[in-house]
Amino acid sequence: MLDAVLAELGERGYDGLTMDSVAARSGVHRATVYRRWGDVGGLLADVLDAAGDDAWQPPDTGSLEGDLAALNREIHDALTAQPPIVAALIAASFRSEQADHAQRRLWEDRYARCEVIVRRAVERAELPLGTDARRLLIAATAPVYHQLVLLRTPPGPDLPGQAARTAALAASAGAFAVPPPAGDT
Amino acid sequence: MLDAVLAELGERGYDGLTMDSVAARSGVHRATVYRRWGDVGGLLADVLDAAGDDAWQPPDTGSLEGDLAALNREIHDALTAQPPIVAALIAASFRSEQADHAQRRLWEDRYARCEVIVRRAVERAELPLGTDARRLLIAATAPVYHQLVLLRTPPGPDLPGQAARTAALAASAGAFAVPPPAGDT
Repeated sequence: MLDAVLAELGERGYDGLTMDSVAARSGVHRATVYRRWGDVGGLLADVLDAAGDDAWQPPDTGSLEGDLAALNREIHDALTAQPPIVAALIAASFRSEQADHAQRRLWEDRYARCEVIVRRAVERAELPLGTDARRLLIAATAPVYHQLVLLRTPPGPDLPGQAARTAALAASAGAFAVPPPAGDT
Repeated sequence: MLDAVLAELGERGYDGLTMDSVAARSGVHRATVYRRWGDVGGLLADVLDAAGDDAWQPPDTGSLEGDLAALNREIHDALTAQPPIVAALIAASFRSEQADHAQRRLWEDRYARCEVIVRRAVERAELPLGTDARRLLIAATAPVYHQLVLLRTPPGPDLPGQAARTAALAASAGAFAVPPPAGDT
């Protein structure tokens, strides 16, 4: 069933996704689809929740910059994949409240799992104790999302690595120290 | 006319925006609206192009971090304003190709105008010659867009300043040097 949603979404985007087309593709009875999922938003929320229900772990390359670069390459590849399923799910989150909530749950879970990248860097003494893991992870990944999802500039092969390097340099310079240094408002 | 589009967009969002409602609110004849703008995407593209046709200049506070923080506060305020016109225009850019192109023109123009922030910092010897202005500006602003537009986490008052400080620290550490240092892929 969820495969049918993904296939329809990849082929037609959110605007072409209907309960009827999903029912037809999956072979599940139309009435069952409506009873169980209610509307397209319900289907998308289930797809997103299922995507998060996996054993994914962030890369473990032995260095902070390496981990962040590998993570950014995964994000880059997901956002530029064909068919554009991840991009279509993000676009759908602007349309459906259920998809919005599910997309936010998925991101929250992914960022939480990624915090181990920062813990390992602290254990290796690459970073000071008390580094704000979430802020560092958002700084590292945000340029990839911003360029590919909002600015929609052509993806450069350097983007994942450059964003990782920028965040790692800033982290070494104390940008994510907790509590923030004086002068940081 | 464009005021009517903004008012409708702020009140109803993209899904509630129709040629007829804009015609009714503006007092322009329906047939004229259709002839001149074609569809809602055409209206939104005109709104976005008009928004960029102004004398806006980036903040000039005397320091790189100050300029970036002030810029981020402007972005933060625009993205969290009520009615949520900027947010609605960004959401619309996922739906309409014309709005997408116009939104990208607007961002391109704004980032180009902001490059003077980096030039001034180079002139003050805050940054080395050959700093990649665009990459620095994207790194500084991306966390604000990412958190407010995609992650939709509650905006913290520290977000604009922290993102500015992170980018300024990374810039001082050579993250945006051109050509990139060895090891940057």
